[in-house]
Amino acid sequence: MKLIDGKKIAEDIRTEIANEVRKMIDNEIKVPHLAAVLVGEDAASQTYVTNKEKACKEVGFISSVYRYSETISEKKLLEVVEFLNNDEEIDGFIVQLPLPKHISPGKIIRAIKPEKDVDGFHPVNIGNMVLNLQGHVPATPYGIMQLIKRSGIETEGKHCVVVGRSNIVGTPVSILLSRNNKNANCTVTLCHSKTNNLKEICSSADILIAAIGKMEFIKADMVKQGAVVIDVGMHRIESSETKSGFRLKGDVAFDEVSKKCSMITPVPGGVGPMTIVGLLMNTLKAAKKEVYN
Amino acid sequence: MKLIDGKKIAEDIRTEIANEVRKMIDNEIKVPHLAAVLVGEDAASQTYVTNKEKACKEVGFISSVYRYSETISEKKLLEVVEFLNNDEEIDGFIVQLPLPKHISPGKIIRAIKPEKDVDGFHPVNIGNMVLNLQGHVPATPYGIMQLIKRSGIETEGKHCVVVGRSNIVGTPVSILLSRNNKNANCTVTLCHSKTNNLKEICSSADILIAAIGKMEFIKADMVKQGAVVIDVGMHRIESSETKSGFRLKGDVAFDEVSKKCSMITPVPGGVGPMTIVGLLMNTLKAAKKEVYN
Repeated sequence: MKLIDGKKIAEDIRTEIANEVRKMIDNEIKVPHLAAVLVGEDAASQTYVTNKEKACKEVGFISSVYRYSETISEKKLLEVVEFLNNDEEIDGFIVQLPLPKHISPGKIIRAIKPEKDVDGFHPVNIGNMVLNLQGHVPATPYGIMQLIKRSGIETEGKHCVVVGRSNIVGTPVSILLSRNNKNANCTVTLCHSKTNNLKEICSSADILIAAIGKMEFIKADMVKQGAVVIDVGMHRIESSETKSGFRLKGDVAFDEVSKKCSMITPVPGGVGPMTIVGLLMNTLKAAKKEVYN
Repeated sequence: MKLIDGKKIAEDIRTEIANEVRKMIDNEIKVPHLAAVLVGEDAASQTYVTNKEKACKEVGFISSVYRYSETISEKKLLEVVEFLNNDEEIDGFIVQLPLPKHISPGKIIRAIKPEKDVDGFHPVNIGNMVLNLQGHVPATPYGIMQLIKRSGIETEGKHCVVVGRSNIVGTPVSILLSRNNKNANCTVTLCHSKTNNLKEICSSADILIAAIGKMEFIKADMVKQGAVVIDVGMHRIESSETKSGFRLKGDVAFDEVSKKCSMITPVPGGVGPMTIVGLLMNTLKAAKKEVYN
């Protein structure tokens, strides 16, 4: 069994991006600028946005954060989006989810200019992904595709089973892996809460992607000997063994599954570090006008 | 074995649409207007557009056809699209494919206003379909969903195998059947030219959708006893047995497969009549401003 080292792969990509930024500076090209809009005080969102700022700094991007109270109106937030759409300094921006209940996330996302939607959530970006056209790809699936590519995992003709059909992970990664591209061309089965005989289907997977949001849901008896397992889950549990008082678990029962598979992503250090890298890659593409131009 | 009577279901839907149009007339609401843009002299395209006009007439829609020589420039065709986008008389329009080689179909399709794109090919419509939001659904998949619904085929939790990943049939129908909707919620496997062990995968399908474009490709040994089979193929072969001198065959070897399955669409008279019905349904929705409003 080989661990898929997401931390190392993410580092490699950040180094490549940093080198590109250095070239931009040498050529007197404006460096990429990623903005984040943060509404309210959600702790996970705060952490995530802080991590984005840190990642931007590390690769040489400019980053900025627009903070608003959770009482901001939908109308006002749409004005913020419009302002960022038109600000030529900013190459891409994200509106951190979740938003307060009185604001429709769909409405906000659809107001973002597709070329600046570096989260890849806008219907135009999703549609272009389906049609195999240029666009921004949702960050986590983009990161997973990089993990697969850079770990040398064979995909063509392989049976890939994706468990979970969320708009931000399961569904887009199922689409990406089924497209007629290098490092894709899988036969993909998309499973979800209504799937019958899940165990049987998972057991037939050459590549199993767990994006269910249930801790240690995938057990060894659901995994084929020699399969590749990608664990998108991230669950924080209390622990007396760590200094922080907690530890992370995935959607996969790592201890038992890892014995059976050929390759597996650990949690933490697997898919987790790749999401922000996906965002950085989209932002670089936006700054270089490689999409929608 | 039961035949899925696409001809009858299409008739039923056309009657329902005609009733709606009658109500619109009674309430002095403008009746739906579908326009088609036809470039060049492709025989199949001519037939298809003529059939659309006939179907429009039958349900009480206004229809119009804009014909151009195959020498029309891309720029000029984009101007036609812009004109139709802005013509308030026209609720929806299609640009008949294929287009001459000097014109990019993607560029033309992306120029159509999504709310008037009743073929459902625009990335925004595809993206909204993935995100389970309102929009125009590609006509053939929309028709297939109606066939399934109106034939009382159980879908929830069933394993559906789609063979063929085209942008206009295989890929969108695989997405539609996997969404969390009534008459959907299938576990979907999307197969294609790069799929290994296709026979084994097809044999596990409760619902098998053949959209490969290869005549009689699906044989009895690829079909599970009792499966539902939807045949999207349409191949014209010479025949001494018919008056017209030709007959139609599907992607499924009907004679042998029909003995094994519980339900099957014939060719002709199965999926075929549903495509134009899908287009009419989209046009009605567009006229009633039920999408993008």
